[in-house]
Amino acid sequence: MIQQQYPSQLLEKAVQEFSKLPGIGRKTALRLVLWMLRQDDSDVTQFTAAVNELKCGVKYCKVCHNISDTDICPICADQRRDQTTVCVVENIQDVMAIENTQQFNGLYHVLGGVISPMDGMGPADIEIDSLIQRVGEGTVQEVILALSPTMEGDTTNFYIYRKLAPTGIKVSVIARGIAVGNELEYADEVTLGRSITNRTLFEEK
Amino acid sequence: MIQQQYPSQLLEKAVQEFSKLPGIGRKTALRLVLWMLRQDDSDVTQFTAAVNELKCGVKYCKVCHNISDTDICPICADQRRDQTTVCVVENIQDVMAIENTQQFNGLYHVLGGVISPMDGMGPADIEIDSLIQRVGEGTVQEVILALSPTMEGDTTNFYIYRKLAPTGIKVSVIARGIAVGNELEYADEVTLGRSITNRTLFEEK
Repeated sequence: MIQQQYPSQLLEKAVQEFSKLPGIGRKTALRLVLWMLRQDDSDVTQFTAAVNELKCGVKYCKVCHNISDTDICPICADQRRDQTTVCVVENIQDVMAIENTQQFNGLYHVLGGVISPMDGMGPADIEIDSLIQRVGEGTVQEVILALSPTMEGDTTNFYIYRKLAPTGIKVSVIARGIAVGNELEYADEVTLGRSITNRTLFEEK
Repeated sequence: MIQQQYPSQLLEKAVQEFSKLPGIGRKTALRLVLWMLRQDDSDVTQFTAAVNELKCGVKYCKVCHNISDTDICPICADQRRDQTTVCVVENIQDVMAIENTQQFNGLYHVLGGVISPMDGMGPADIEIDSLIQRVGEGTVQEVILALSPTMEGDTTNFYIYRKLAPTGIKVSVIARGIAVGNELEYADEVTLGRSITNRTLFEEK
């Protein structure tokens, strides 16, 4: 393929920066940059300012490591929430996803990743020690492991479980099963198998 | 749908800005912003600086209105190029696309759009007057219309042709026909019809 020649160094540089973004190729980057060029100066300044301010101003909650504008995030600071239950998730999106369900009233602990030797992520690279310490303080009575059902997620679950076992605290894992609305026949065997093993009593709703 | 609650105002603002970009929804915007957060401060500064510098520093060639770092773009300034042939295109991407073919050695004229009453774009909103003026200066001997074969493109072609007719200059249109590599049977009738009307003598290559 011919390397696209840009008529402007500034354009070339901006396209290069945009194409570093995940899932954005050079063609899309060019489209975004040219769109940006058509906007008002003030809109572009607003865009770059928002990015810079986020990068400089963002904080992580000292308790749960969720993103926050304050030292302690609104969830951890909310005394109406159940302080005895902590849900362990991989990242910030997972917190938002669970919050959206409006089914969970406890607190979170954001690991910031999962154990993945292939990607050079060990237990020390994610917020496991702070979780153990947090649990050690005595308020927490149950830890819910809500990581993705991947090999890395399961490894991390197991690692955390082993670390927490000596404390005698209750450790649970979110249910694996057939997703609501999915066809049974298309479910993979492991999921289907687990959904039978972990069956629950039928409840009239 | 539940409006996603962000744990941080700064995050909310950055996501809002990213989701203004064409083809970027809120979910992708969030992914991009969180990716940005994981980058080094210097990388983020470099990104925003590239966008700001482009917006402030970019120029448009005074002759052809292509994007440029200088008052006259490198193509217009290149004396080895055929100064008598001007290819009229809709936008900057089209210049790059034609340059990539390495089949054209003349100059360009970037209209910056096509006549489209539905979008409120009239002849005065695009660089038609400057084209007429440029042709009037006497060097140009042929104008090649290379707009997209859409209704708007054809309208613009016709408008430009009518404006140039009194000058007696040669006006040509890029060939419409079956794309190289395409199956004949899947071509639409208009294209197929034109490809027969506009047949060329067979040449051994």
